[in-house]
Amino acid sequence: MNELSIPPKTVSAAAEPASRLGALRAALAQAGIQGFLVPRADEHQGEYVARAAERLWFLTGFGGSAGMAIVLPTRAAVFVDGRYTLQAETEVDKTCFEIVHLAKTQPHEWLAAAAEPGQRIAYDPWLHTPDGLARLKAAAAKAGATLVAAPNPVDAIWADRPPLPAAPVLPHALEFAGQPSVEKRAEIAKKLAADGVAAAVLTLPDSIAWLLNVRGGDVAHSPLPLSFAILKSDGGVDWFLDPRKRNADLANHLDGGVALRLPGEFAAALAALKGAKVQADSATAASWIFDRLEEAGATVVRAADPCLMPKACKNPVELAGIRAAHRRDGAALSKFLAWIARTAPRGGVREMAAADKLEAFRRQSNLLRDLSFGTISGAGPNGAIVHYRATPKTDRELEPGELYLVDSGGQYPDGTTDVTRTVAIGTPTADMKKHFTLVLKGHIALATARFPAGTSGSQLDALARVALWREGLDYDHGTGHGVGHYLCVHEGPQRISKMPNTVALKPGMVVSNEPGYYKTGAYGIRIENLVAVEKQGEGDGGIEQLGFETLTVAPIDRALVDTSILTEGEIAWLDAYHARVRAELARQIDGEDRAWLVAATAPLER
Amino acid sequence: MNELSIPPKTVSAAAEPASRLGALRAALAQAGIQGFLVPRADEHQGEYVARAAERLWFLTGFGGSAGMAIVLPTRAAVFVDGRYTLQAETEVDKTCFEIVHLAKTQPHEWLAAAAEPGQRIAYDPWLHTPDGLARLKAAAAKAGATLVAAPNPVDAIWADRPPLPAAPVLPHALEFAGQPSVEKRAEIAKKLAADGVAAAVLTLPDSIAWLLNVRGGDVAHSPLPLSFAILKSDGGVDWFLDPRKRNADLANHLDGGVALRLPGEFAAALAALKGAKVQADSATAASWIFDRLEEAGATVVRAADPCLMPKACKNPVELAGIRAAHRRDGAALSKFLAWIARTAPRGGVREMAAADKLEAFRRQSNLLRDLSFGTISGAGPNGAIVHYRATPKTDRELEPGELYLVDSGGQYPDGTTDVTRTVAIGTPTADMKKHFTLVLKGHIALATARFPAGTSGSQLDALARVALWREGLDYDHGTGHGVGHYLCVHEGPQRISKMPNTVALKPGMVVSNEPGYYKTGAYGIRIENLVAVEKQGEGDGGIEQLGFETLTVAPIDRALVDTSILTEGEIAWLDAYHARVRAELARQIDGEDRAWLVAATAPLER
Repeated sequence: MNELSIPPKTVSAAAEPASRLGALRAALAQAGIQGFLVPRADEHQGEYVARAAERLWFLTGFGGSAGMAIVLPTRAAVFVDGRYTLQAETEVDKTCFEIVHLAKTQPHEWLAAAAEPGQRIAYDPWLHTPDGLARLKAAAAKAGATLVAAPNPVDAIWADRPPLPAAPVLPHALEFAGQPSVEKRAEIAKKLAADGVAAAVLTLPDSIAWLLNVRGGDVAHSPLPLSFAILKSDGGVDWFLDPRKRNADLANHLDGGVALRLPGEFAAALAALKGAKVQADSATAASWIFDRLEEAGATVVRAADPCLMPKACKNPVELAGIRAAHRRDGAALSKFLAWIARTAPRGGVREMAAADKLEAFRRQSNLLRDLSFGTISGAGPNGAIVHYRATPKTDRELEPGELYLVDSGGQYPDGTTDVTRTVAIGTPTADMKKHFTLVLKGHIALATARFPAGTSGSQLDALARVALWREGLDYDHGTGHGVGHYLCVHEGPQRISKMPNTVALKPGMVVSNEPGYYKTGAYGIRIENLVAVEKQGEGDGGIEQLGFETLTVAPIDRALVDTSILTEGEIAWLDAYHARVRAELARQIDGEDRAWLVAATAPLER
Repeated sequence: MNELSIPPKTVSAAAEPASRLGALRAALAQAGIQGFLVPRADEHQGEYVARAAERLWFLTGFGGSAGMAIVLPTRAAVFVDGRYTLQAETEVDKTCFEIVHLAKTQPHEWLAAAAEPGQRIAYDPWLHTPDGLARLKAAAAKAGATLVAAPNPVDAIWADRPPLPAAPVLPHALEFAGQPSVEKRAEIAKKLAADGVAAAVLTLPDSIAWLLNVRGGDVAHSPLPLSFAILKSDGGVDWFLDPRKRNADLANHLDGGVALRLPGEFAAALAALKGAKVQADSATAASWIFDRLEEAGATVVRAADPCLMPKACKNPVELAGIRAAHRRDGAALSKFLAWIARTAPRGGVREMAAADKLEAFRRQSNLLRDLSFGTISGAGPNGAIVHYRATPKTDRELEPGELYLVDSGGQYPDGTTDVTRTVAIGTPTADMKKHFTLVLKGHIALATARFPAGTSGSQLDALARVALWREGLDYDHGTGHGVGHYLCVHEGPQRISKMPNTVALKPGMVVSNEPGYYKTGAYGIRIENLVAVEKQGEGDGGIEQLGFETLTVAPIDRALVDTSILTEGEIAWLDAYHARVRAELARQIDGEDRAWLVAATAPLER
């Protein structure tokens, strides 16, 4: 779609769904285009996006964190995954959009069937990666249609589109980061130079934040400055940062190797890479960037973002901060669990109020910068909804005889936390105890695993499932995700999951250990601690042996443990863990909370 | 390379290495070609190849089962993996060839560095798959050189090349196969038709043998008829089979849907698929076939050989035969182990003689058609060489105080076996017992695993390693390979291995369960049983639960078990396994052998 000589008619997000869709189709028709792809992604492919980037929500009303819409002249569809099918049913106007389940039909499959020969279907090249586009382009071609890059028509019709965020970017102090930016850049630049690469384009906000030792606030829950950067093989960086985000602290913090430039200069800077060998990540960087580099005649090397691996492997200073953040966070969570234990059995505590209470305990330290994600606070059957978010409509009381699952985390300047505890309100049933204990066995099996260097998370995933499998049970999510250091709560490239992943676990990587079990309509169970990969000596043949250091410190509900199905070793692990929890938290907790903690961390009764 | 008007000078396999290499370079020069690729593969990408296909051996002297050579005007290299580095050092003339370790440098990497701009390097399109060629072509291009398809110049210079094999092809009776060929073909043809595919080209000899219920004898150890076939979406087959392999029994066996054609007609048959949608497997079928189909203007669908999955999932008749074969084979192995127990401690038993003795016990049934692979018979430190083959030079005595590892198998008309036992000669050390017991723990963990449908072998691999990992130990090979039904002892597509593999285990698949431990220079331990995937009821949410039925029946050396590091459950498993071994084998074994069996299968002493 070319820029229109006459601007299209605009419409508010508050208008009827049909009029928003109608305005988009009119704008497309005006430009001689028959369709448009609307992913939930922003220009940085982040999990959390700015309000100005909520184009999928504006068009369809769907507010989930993943999904896509495709608009054609007479058909339009919204694609959502299993987490969001119920939510999409209530948010999306089905007279405008078909709701398609991603597990049944992928967008490219729908497109191949729905597109018609000769159609020109537009996409915003800022919102798709080359890897993501490849399948969609092939599907369009199969139908005889063509995908064409175009300026975003949703932005053009969105009357009340919020402004782009401009939160100040602030230094991330060396006492937390542990390594000066100039050193990080020199190390990566050395590798680029060794590969004969002149420059790497950086598009992931957490990569840029890590590399430059800065943090921002442009999106919820992750302290990210949205921006782009080009890292050169001499260690210098061109940083394309909105001037509104700059300030004196930032200026003092940056070294001479970082050149601040305007976002509008990014295109020219890419064009200036003419003839050079330039690295960009086709799984995470916008297609727009590849188009510019190819136009400029650069030799494009498609390789993983060079910050991913060093960012994932936390240095000793980062790890020390992460441990401190976990002690602080564990104390807040323990106070909350003590409050739940005292209050909930008497009745009247609801999910949303409980989540607020937990946030309040976390804020008491005055170091909480944000929650690391929206708290999952699920009572009874709501706990069985894996990505549950309580709303005034669903807000359930924590009732005696039921389980309560709370998955939450905090962003502190020294670390990011993510922890899940499941507790019995009143007296649990034998089945609840059995299922909880099976999940606990999986958690312990992973926490105590020892394995040779080179082992991937995929190889370890089954260890957390075997006890459940033996009883014919399982859980339908991954066992562990990477976690950033005061950055994204979901961070790659490592993962512990059924899905094949060849990234070897390396010392310093932080991952979650979170097996679960979900009995639909009844209860959900999940036990999640964060763990750090650590060296555990050398094995046979001098191969480095690795294992996990558990970072999270908070009681695991002893009332839900059936010791008859634990081994001696598993009982010893839980007792030792609880002794450590008590030792690390007792000084931070007083009075009746401390009495609760002492009881909650006592050795198991046989 | 075009056909030469003047035939090149030929040379015998017995000639000096330099003159064989010289003859090849002369033939290449005559044709205006600068290089040639010599893989170990034959036209069917099989593990065992006919003597006429041993081109790598003819040229380089290297006789291992995997490898490749690349010949350029002034450099030539032989690429071998870790199993074969020692063997290559003794077999290959290093004044002619560099020996390159595959783990350090892959052929395509070597080619990219060694080829020169403008060079034309030939390959035999019959001996490479499109998937295998892709990397080599890219590497040549990187160096400015070109790979070109050519008739094989090694065949042209090989004076005493053996004739192509022509073993008779015989019916595989329905009492063993369990399903008529016409039914198998109808089921696959239905899937082809559903995919809109007119025909599938079959190149794997075991796929053709399975599909047509025939067996042959063209290579060692696997009862394969080398041939090609085209399966059509109406269930009919064009079978391109050397007339010398045909006979009256075969003619009576084949139904009217199988058209016997001459091998020389294969090219024309592919050309006749002009305009049709034709399926071929780019991972296993020769590049030559794709070239013909593309020349013919066929629409080529690159998809896995359609026989792979139904062949891997054995039917109830096949499974019954496999169980019978294992009882017969277990009796032979037990007699051998009894003989070892009586004889070896007195001294004088050597590895090669032991392997011969074991083969003789297997032949006593009169049903052994072949060994399923060359027996690995390794005493003391030789047992630590994973793919050891005893030779007169290495033939070691089974000495008291050492371990003896024997990995062997038989081809019977009702099934293929593959079993490894490790036994102590005399009194084992505490370390030997500890290591053996850790391997046993892994073996039992896998044997008793229960898991939901959809789980792949990659997901289960760690279960067999965890006990070793905990002690800083591991083994450098896969945990399990698929096994055919009176077919190849290594059969895909499933595998239990560290390497990512997304093929889900399905009921009826047969795999090996063979963890090990190898102490270089001292001893090797491996405990291998074959197991069949079986349904074990339904789990939560109605998902099918799977597990393993152990097929192999032979004693596991109780003298090597340290019960102090086994759990009660593990001890119970071994005692129950031994009770079953005794019950299934006792009637086949007499006298002092039976007395030995009874003692060898007694419950463990605590």
